[in-house]
Amino acid sequence: MNLILIFDSDFIDSHTARLSGRRFLHIRDVLKAQPGQDLSVGKLDSLTGTGRVVLLACDAVVLEVCLNQKPPEPLALTLIVGLPRPPAVKRVLFFAAMLGIKKIIILNFRRVEKSLWRSSVLQPDAIRDMLILGLEQAKDTRMPEVALEKRFKPFVEDQLPSLVKGSLGLVADPGSLERLGDEGDCPLPAPSSVILVIGPEGGIIDYEMALLKKAGCKAVNLGARILRIEAVVPFVVGKLF
Amino acid sequence: MNLILIFDSDFIDSHTARLSGRRFLHIRDVLKAQPGQDLSVGKLDSLTGTGRVVLLACDAVVLEVCLNQKPPEPLALTLIVGLPRPPAVKRVLFFAAMLGIKKIIILNFRRVEKSLWRSSVLQPDAIRDMLILGLEQAKDTRMPEVALEKRFKPFVEDQLPSLVKGSLGLVADPGSLERLGDEGDCPLPAPSSVILVIGPEGGIIDYEMALLKKAGCKAVNLGARILRIEAVVPFVVGKLF
Repeated sequence: MNLILIFDSDFIDSHTARLSGRRFLHIRDVLKAQPGQDLSVGKLDSLTGTGRVVLLACDAVVLEVCLNQKPPEPLALTLIVGLPRPPAVKRVLFFAAMLGIKKIIILNFRRVEKSLWRSSVLQPDAIRDMLILGLEQAKDTRMPEVALEKRFKPFVEDQLPSLVKGSLGLVADPGSLERLGDEGDCPLPAPSSVILVIGPEGGIIDYEMALLKKAGCKAVNLGARILRIEAVVPFVVGKLF
Repeated sequence: MNLILIFDSDFIDSHTARLSGRRFLHIRDVLKAQPGQDLSVGKLDSLTGTGRVVLLACDAVVLEVCLNQKPPEPLALTLIVGLPRPPAVKRVLFFAAMLGIKKIIILNFRRVEKSLWRSSVLQPDAIRDMLILGLEQAKDTRMPEVALEKRFKPFVEDQLPSLVKGSLGLVADPGSLERLGDEGDCPLPAPSSVILVIGPEGGIIDYEMALLKKAGCKAVNLGARILRIEAVVPFVVGKLF
């Protein structure tokens, strides 16, 4: 937690916030903050700044909040990811929020086990909790938007083409032949915005790849190694931005 | 586990291996393999190929092994990382092995809590277990080498200069001013080899940075966001290779 994220509901007046629970425990036990100490804080979807510890009670901390800095710029990348297993969902959301991705679409593919859609990690509160951890890590305040798209074809045919229009649409798939930034070549320059599609664990079937290409995406191979899904995100972000 | 790693001690004759424990359970319960089925296997520090299931016993599986493919190329990057907390040590080792890094040096810095050096995750067996998971993910067989350097100054003054010679030495530190691949610029081309130093959670103090620069390293700033240490690795690898 490099930044303590404060919500509207925490404010007891315009400059004073009262935090309990996880954030209070972090301030007391990890930061070992004392009254008068300044902590790095940010207000959800707003500015960052400092929170001076005014009072440390047994179950809450009161901060005098001064917000005067912009959060880091959002990353111009939309992540579309085949629904992975629950632990990987959590890691992908954390990594995406940390990297500044503001739009995440979790998509169904043929090789996604249907039962995964019932996982508790897809509940709105669980998603939000992971995103908050990512924002706190990166000292960001802007909450990403997450959409769950359980129907592949309607999404790829009706919504994806307009998302890709004017952007670079990429599909990361180990089965493809083209390569993104071969060793020795100059990697691609950073495009204005990127739509990155990462297939599911079992891979993308030919029919799905054809539809993704028809929607304007280009298949890229990230090399001989099969990376964990959450590692693909910083790998591609590092390459393109 | 995209590849099942087989060790010398598993072979009962030159082409037959008997696996028990974690790998057996994975083959039986996750892959749900049947006799006659071919599995993706690799021999430690050797070739990859297939293992045909000959026998599934109640506590072990016997594979007929055919090794005929080279593992993926190693990455020409040496990772030098300030000792992080135990869960992060495990993630860094996993990510490094997955990305093909073959030399990992865990280094002391002033702002590393000394007690962390006593953590059980630094035991040779624990290190090896995490590296194996990373190799299995990436379908690699070549075991990385891990060194623990508990004394910063002797390492940086006596060993680092010869490591950096002929390579690009980089120190990833959020406090620095130079940037690696500014947005809009063409990122750096892949150098022949890279020495990447990642500081500890608490940061690199000026004295340490001066010694690292004297040893031939260049400080780079990876942007406004503070990334989790294991995410820095694929981010930089994506940028440079």
